[in-house]
Amino acid sequence: METRNIFLNISPLDHRYSLSESAVFDRLSSHISEQASIVSCARAEIALVKAHLSVRGGLTAEMEKKLDEVALTIDPSRVYEEEEKTRHNIRALVNVLKEMVPEEVAPLVHLGATSVDILDTALSVRMRDCVRDAVLPELRALETKLCEIASREAATPQVGRTHGQHAVPITFGFAMAEYASRLGKSILEIETRAEGLAGKLAGAVGAYNATSMIVRDPEDLEKRYLGYLGLVPSEHSTQLVEPEYLLRLLLECNVAFGIIANLADDLRNLQRSEVGEVFEYFSSTQVGSSTMPQKRNPWNSEHVKSLWKAFAPRVMTFFMDQISEHQRDLSNSASQRFMADYIAGFTLAVSRMKSVVSGLQADRDGMARNLANAGGKVKGGVLAEPAYILLAETGVSDGHEVIRKITLDAETNSISFYEALKKNPDAFGRISGQLQKLGIADPAGFFENPERYRGLAAEKAARIAEKYAALMKSAEKKN
Amino acid sequence: METRNIFLNISPLDHRYSLSESAVFDRLSSHISEQASIVSCARAEIALVKAHLSVRGGLTAEMEKKLDEVALTIDPSRVYEEEEKTRHNIRALVNVLKEMVPEEVAPLVHLGATSVDILDTALSVRMRDCVRDAVLPELRALETKLCEIASREAATPQVGRTHGQHAVPITFGFAMAEYASRLGKSILEIETRAEGLAGKLAGAVGAYNATSMIVRDPEDLEKRYLGYLGLVPSEHSTQLVEPEYLLRLLLECNVAFGIIANLADDLRNLQRSEVGEVFEYFSSTQVGSSTMPQKRNPWNSEHVKSLWKAFAPRVMTFFMDQISEHQRDLSNSASQRFMADYIAGFTLAVSRMKSVVSGLQADRDGMARNLANAGGKVKGGVLAEPAYILLAETGVSDGHEVIRKITLDAETNSISFYEALKKNPDAFGRISGQLQKLGIADPAGFFENPERYRGLAAEKAARIAEKYAALMKSAEKKN
Amino acid sequence: METRNIFLNISPLDHRYSLSESAVFDRLSSHISEQASIVSCARAEIALVKAHLSVRGGLTAEMEKKLDEVALTIDPSRVYEEEEKTRHNIRALVNVLKEMVPEEVAPLVHLGATSVDILDTALSVRMRDCVRDAVLPELRALETKLCEIASREAATPQVGRTHGQHAVPITFGFAMAEYASRLGKSILEIETRAEGLAGKLAGAVGAYNATSMIVRDPEDLEKRYLGYLGLVPSEHSTQLVEPEYLLRLLLECNVAFGIIANLADDLRNLQRSEVGEVFEYFSSTQVGSSTMPQKRNPWNSEHVKSLWKAFAPRVMTFFMDQISEHQRDLSNSASQRFMADYIAGFTLAVSRMKSVVSGLQADRDGMARNLANAGGKVKGGVLAEPAYILLAETGVSDGHEVIRKITLDAETNSISFYEALKKNPDAFGRISGQLQKLGIADPAGFFENPERYRGLAAEKAARIAEKYAALMKSAEKKN
Amino acid sequence: METRNIFLNISPLDHRYSLSESAVFDRLSSHISEQASIVSCARAEIALVKAHLSVRGGLTAEMEKKLDEVALTIDPSRVYEEEEKTRHNIRALVNVLKEMVPEEVAPLVHLGATSVDILDTALSVRMRDCVRDAVLPELRALETKLCEIASREAATPQVGRTHGQHAVPITFGFAMAEYASRLGKSILEIETRAEGLAGKLAGAVGAYNATSMIVRDPEDLEKRYLGYLGLVPSEHSTQLVEPEYLLRLLLECNVAFGIIANLADDLRNLQRSEVGEVFEYFSSTQVGSSTMPQKRNPWNSEHVKSLWKAFAPRVMTFFMDQISEHQRDLSNSASQRFMADYIAGFTLAVSRMKSVVSGLQADRDGMARNLANAGGKVKGGVLAEPAYILLAETGVSDGHEVIRKITLDAETNSISFYEALKKNPDAFGRISGQLQKLGIADPAGFFENPERYRGLAAEKAARIAEKYAALMKSAEKKN
Repeated sequence: METRNIFLNISPLDHRYSLSESAVFDRLSSHISEQASIVSCARAEIALVKAHLSVRGGLTAEMEKKLDEVALTIDPSRVYEEEEKTRHNIRALVNVLKEMVPEEVAPLVHLGATSVDILDTALSVRMRDCVRDAVLPELRALETKLCEIASREAATPQVGRTHGQHAVPITFGFAMAEYASRLGKSILEIETRAEGLAGKLAGAVGAYNATSMIVRDPEDLEKRYLGYLGLVPSEHSTQLVEPEYLLRLLLECNVAFGIIANLADDLRNLQRSEVGEVFEYFSSTQVGSSTMPQKRNPWNSEHVKSLWKAFAPRVMTFFMDQISEHQRDLSNSASQRFMADYIAGFTLAVSRMKSVVSGLQADRDGMARNLANAGGKVKGGVLAEPAYILLAETGVSDGHEVIRKITLDAETNSISFYEALKKNPDAFGRISGQLQKLGIADPAGFFENPERYRGLAAEKAARIAEKYAALMKSAEKKN
Repeated sequence: METRNIFLNISPLDHRYSLSESAVFDRLSSHISEQASIVSCARAEIALVKAHLSVRGGLTAEMEKKLDEVALTIDPSRVYEEEEKTRHNIRALVNVLKEMVPEEVAPLVHLGATSVDILDTALSVRMRDCVRDAVLPELRALETKLCEIASREAATPQVGRTHGQHAVPITFGFAMAEYASRLGKSILEIETRAEGLAGKLAGAVGAYNATSMIVRDPEDLEKRYLGYLGLVPSEHSTQLVEPEYLLRLLLECNVAFGIIANLADDLRNLQRSEVGEVFEYFSSTQVGSSTMPQKRNPWNSEHVKSLWKAFAPRVMTFFMDQISEHQRDLSNSASQRFMADYIAGFTLAVSRMKSVVSGLQADRDGMARNLANAGGKVKGGVLAEPAYILLAETGVSDGHEVIRKITLDAETNSISFYEALKKNPDAFGRISGQLQKLGIADPAGFFENPERYRGLAAEKAARIAEKYAALMKSAEKKN
Repeated sequence: METRNIFLNISPLDHRYSLSESAVFDRLSSHISEQASIVSCARAEIALVKAHLSVRGGLTAEMEKKLDEVALTIDPSRVYEEEEKTRHNIRALVNVLKEMVPEEVAPLVHLGATSVDILDTALSVRMRDCVRDAVLPELRALETKLCEIASREAATPQVGRTHGQHAVPITFGFAMAEYASRLGKSILEIETRAEGLAGKLAGAVGAYNATSMIVRDPEDLEKRYLGYLGLVPSEHSTQLVEPEYLLRLLLECNVAFGIIANLADDLRNLQRSEVGEVFEYFSSTQVGSSTMPQKRNPWNSEHVKSLWKAFAPRVMTFFMDQISEHQRDLSNSASQRFMADYIAGFTLAVSRMKSVVSGLQADRDGMARNLANAGGKVKGGVLAEPAYILLAETGVSDGHEVIRKITLDAETNSISFYEALKKNPDAFGRISGQLQKLGIADPAGFFENPERYRGLAAEKAARIAEKYAALMKSAEKKN
Repeated sequence: METRNIFLNISPLDHRYSLSESAVFDRLSSHISEQASIVSCARAEIALVKAHLSVRGGLTAEMEKKLDEVALTIDPSRVYEEEEKTRHNIRALVNVLKEMVPEEVAPLVHLGATSVDILDTALSVRMRDCVRDAVLPELRALETKLCEIASREAATPQVGRTHGQHAVPITFGFAMAEYASRLGKSILEIETRAEGLAGKLAGAVGAYNATSMIVRDPEDLEKRYLGYLGLVPSEHSTQLVEPEYLLRLLLECNVAFGIIANLADDLRNLQRSEVGEVFEYFSSTQVGSSTMPQKRNPWNSEHVKSLWKAFAPRVMTFFMDQISEHQRDLSNSASQRFMADYIAGFTLAVSRMKSVVSGLQADRDGMARNLANAGGKVKGGVLAEPAYILLAETGVSDGHEVIRKITLDAETNSISFYEALKKNPDAFGRISGQLQKLGIADPAGFFENPERYRGLAAEKAARIAEKYAALMKSAEKKN
């Protein structure tokens, strides 16, 4: 067993981030480290021995126990030593396993299998397990937190922004419900894709050449083999499992990554000095800047966005790895190994975003202040929209233009939109009348309280929060 | 209406490929050109007018007919002229429509909608229609052709290749069935994603602010609006529809693109001078090279691969367009317009691959010749695998090593694998005995006819071909 | 000549953007449309005829004139018609040219050349010319505008921002000088790369096989040929020019694109409702939003960012096109055609950014207001840095910690940083003393006028502006 | 110091490849591991102390020695422990250094610097050193080997291939000279870019605010600081060094990566069973396949291609990291850390390709065999080109068409091209006459020895090999 000072590692995953997020790192490592990779191959090899024995009717409970034990106790270092000699990783594993299993079943080890029957199957096994046990729990925890905020802040008034400009009012819970809705659907997709991963026992070129020499029904043998591992068979195989089963899982992870990156950007911007609507948790001994002692930076949100920049473009590798010549070439082998890095990078980002959201402080006063000042250069300008709509409702076809001129007047004369509106008796009369039909007797009460113009923001926030909170809860229970 | 010599266009889509694939281009253009884009927005605006009227109980069949007519007869040039003035494309469209619709419904045009309620909805409409009417028919035609070849050549012997090296035998139909299986599943996904596209009528920030001033149940109004267009509502909206509905469709297109690129690479390699197993159709007046009159290049397969290179990396744009600040920024607007280019590039590649596969000539003699010479430096070496397996079956644990040495002996002494095998009486005896158990009395008959060692290649090819041919047929019927 | 309603084109380049930026489009089209492409090939073919004649000593001035005329008058439609028959674009061109040139030189047309001797050479010619005449003028105009602003606003106080938080003061000119400096260097690189593009006349596999049968010194013939076009020969050729000459030019364009995208992001953020430091020019009839009449969106900056999203990822295509098997495969052919789209997209972004910068309104009051409020939650907190430095200067080793606590005190008690500082007599005394050494007698004057703490911002802005303005001027003169 | 079983690492760089390429890994780790990163920051901090002392006239040789010692003996674990407390990596380093340096200079540690003055500068230092000491030596060794083969095989006949089809003859040395030429130029660019990397000491927003409080000429202080580290100052800084200095280095690495990937593809294809022109070195105990004992796979070339797939798309991250809001945001921080992975992946690919090329066996018999059979379906068809050229030389304008028909005749009647040519007395007569003018009396001798038709292949191979071998040698001497 070779050990190394972790600071001599090259990938930040294996030094800096293995420390800063050590719990997540350990869970990931237990599934997608090199050790986990060898163990997963051993599990596949053992499943194959069991499949052979079951076809032959010779799989006793005792033997099954012995074999399972072998898979769990394999020493990756020994396999690596053997590979020095064979220059072939699976042949090395086979040699080691043959010595570990009961002598009578040694000839069954790897029998009929080509390396990739083991490798691709083991990859699916450990990706599924890693997603189940390391990725999804983080995602669900994040989603649950998002639902909590969406629910808690469902009615907290906030100015809606488009193009970075104040638009019309929403609530902060509604803004967060966006992410609950988008991420929630992505989580459900990730679950489905992970559970649908496939394996194979179809031999060197996928045609069951070898196993056809050994058993009457090679596809039955394949099903037994994969059954021990909980996988479905690839519909068609070459030397490889069809790449798209795994590809679609990875793409959906990248979809979720993009959603989280978007949330990170929103949180960064809401923390701008001039905006000040939310804050990341900041411990009392923390240093914001090495020279500017007053700084409180949204560095966790920035960190998440940065991880997205580092990992999202790697989807191109996944797409390029779809292409393998004829019944396979090896040009997807090294590249596929870095899938582990991708999953780790993604999970670290999810985990960090979970922390951000968990400690997120919504500054309701800040939100109220911005909403009160809303409308950019025109105070109260966020209510230009309902004014235009109410006017149009009365049959004024150029209502938009009428109101646009009123906002220009407000800007030019530095008065509020409501004051400018009152200067136009016709429009103001029509709008007031229309407001009365909606049960609003006092136009000033409407135009000076923009938070009332929030549509279904609060209801929708609550509804989405409830839906996904329930879905996450039931998913956790299942596991 | 502005016209232009097409050779003055910049994008190859609009000059070269609009000529070389004119039928496909015209179908695409009818869905995703700028004209189609404006028409789709007009359809959405008209759907909104109908929704308003239906809520108010005032939508007569006659009015519906008049309104539908407006959508079909809108002149994009007029809209562009109007935009010169407004500098805002949807406001321009609204102005034009207000003049076209019956005067009494003019105030309902765009009422309660923000531009993106129209734009995002119209985008979903035309993407769905384009996929339905232009993309899927090409994909299904290609898939059907693949199934035909897989079926016809199900039993045609071919050497399987891994790492570009002769491995063990398959059939050519089996090799093609790989693509039928992979592409078939992708087509089904594309159908599902296209039919699940979403629209919205949730206003400037997604909270139904405006429509809440107009109707009692804004979500009901949204459903009516989208119902006229055959879309579902986005679960949550900001100013934008959740981007992932469309993103997943585009990603699946790129998945299919990768499958086709892989097929292109395989066909290119099977056409190498030294391999010569398949040929693209080549007309008698065609010139292969401007200086080398003997050349027959696999240029259509190369073309498909080249289109993949040009378009596959654009998924990064789709992922980047997931990110929009707060309730939206406009930084996905121009980029999203180029989605049309992507769909066009993808469809052109599918269409070209359809031509390649339609005219593909499988050279059975060439395949037989290569299989006969198979095994790289060792003649008959492709049967080293069954030899090793049969040997292992007799309980020889180091069978792989025994056979590896026999192949080295064959290479060193330039004899066939079978001859070298016979020089090892122990191994040969065991293997012959094992063959007899499988009902093969004559070892020479087995080792000198490698095409018999094909596993389930033929059966699987036929089964997959049948399955997907049927699926394609029933899908076409539905439409 | 085939014409088409431009609204039936698919690429936004050929409809929407060809109208909105028609001058730039026309200049681009004159260099990189299909017509321009055929003309550039004709120029190359004619250069080859001249090279042959010059080697043979038979190139008269009159003949040269006649030949040049042919290149200029070729009709792309005829070439396309001919390609219908030959299915080979260069053979088609050759057939047309043979009919156009004086009969006695017809046998010299294309003599010794393979198609790519013409195609790759012509590509280099038109890319160089396009960069010279369409891309660089836009870039230089943008750079010149940037220098103007950097110079004009060199001393305009602005708060510096890191992590979206107020940091320490700069000037607006200094902020713009960043882009003048970065873009300036990129422009110089683009010039160099464009002028260093290479061509070839080395035949089907790059070994001068054909021309070796025709002339004594094939490399001399190549130099004459390329000399007529102003290119250098590729150091080594296969059928293709080494791809890296062109690749490096495209990569540098993408470098410049990233710089412009960064500027776009900065301008977008400075236009936020809460920030309000700059504004894009907004005409009086312009509509900001179809429903929110008060809106003024930074949509041109968003547009530039969006074009970056659409085009920057295409560099992956350029990198993939480096790979061509053996002496070439055709899988870079279609993909390379879309290089024209890239150059167009890039140039449109540059041009749009030029407009943004030309019309940019710096709101000096807005900048002053933000600077006055600077420090996020702590008023005057932007001067925590000099306080810490001055304290450290007096030998206080934990000065950073001392000041950090003072900023916390200021925040907790809602007092300004300066007030909190005064509450710590030791630190205040030391800092005041140190300020006196720097010639600042009045600490309040320093701590209440943060704009004085601007370092070399103004000097550096002026210096960089002057340098690059001069460089741009002299570059324009050369051309 | 925390150690870990390397098989628990996640990135293949830190487990599998750190073993299989341990020498390269160790060299990389010594420059770009986390430990190396902290050491490089310490070097920068110490350079800053020296700069302060030198400005003040107080830097003695003894002090310089003491300070340099500190940089070399810093313990990264201590810095990490301190970071637990500060949550800020540079503040942690500063705290540790203050305890290590002579007490009298402790207040000078980090004085006037913002974290990034250290971080960005240190990054440039270690990237330059890593390129100098780890990357370039591997690249030069590979280039030297390529030159050796190009030189040794300069005259070895090989068939040239375009589109995977036999085209006209070249030499194997000429084919390798392509890579010597392309890679050679890239190496020179990498050297230039690495030596031109920049640092900064311009403070929190780049305007020298802090250092302006400390020294009279802050730019002089910056130059002294960077001078101790061998860097130039960034022309303009924000909080960051202009990103393009480093970006251009990374892009050029990716250019070189593409060249190597192209070579890998060529070598893979030349090793196909049917082609068999080169072979990777294969040790006698090596196992080609776990089930197919006869296999010899080009797995090292496949490995290089696979690394390219894994790493080349990461350039998108580098381009995205150009964008940082205002005077900086942190969203390039995590992503930039993975630059170390990129450099490692690239260097491993170079190193592996060096091994492949070092052990490459050119099978001259195989090359001769393929050339003899060359012409695809038409034996001798590779000489259709000179036949057409010679014919054209005699004034036959449709020579290409004449010869194309002769190749069709040859194919139809299964005769060689030369036999078919003789069946056309006119063409044969003209060609023979033309050959005589070139000093070739015997047409059969020409048409039956295609290797003679090789143009300048041999000369050019030798010339390029000589040029770059010399350049590499002199570069190594300099270092």
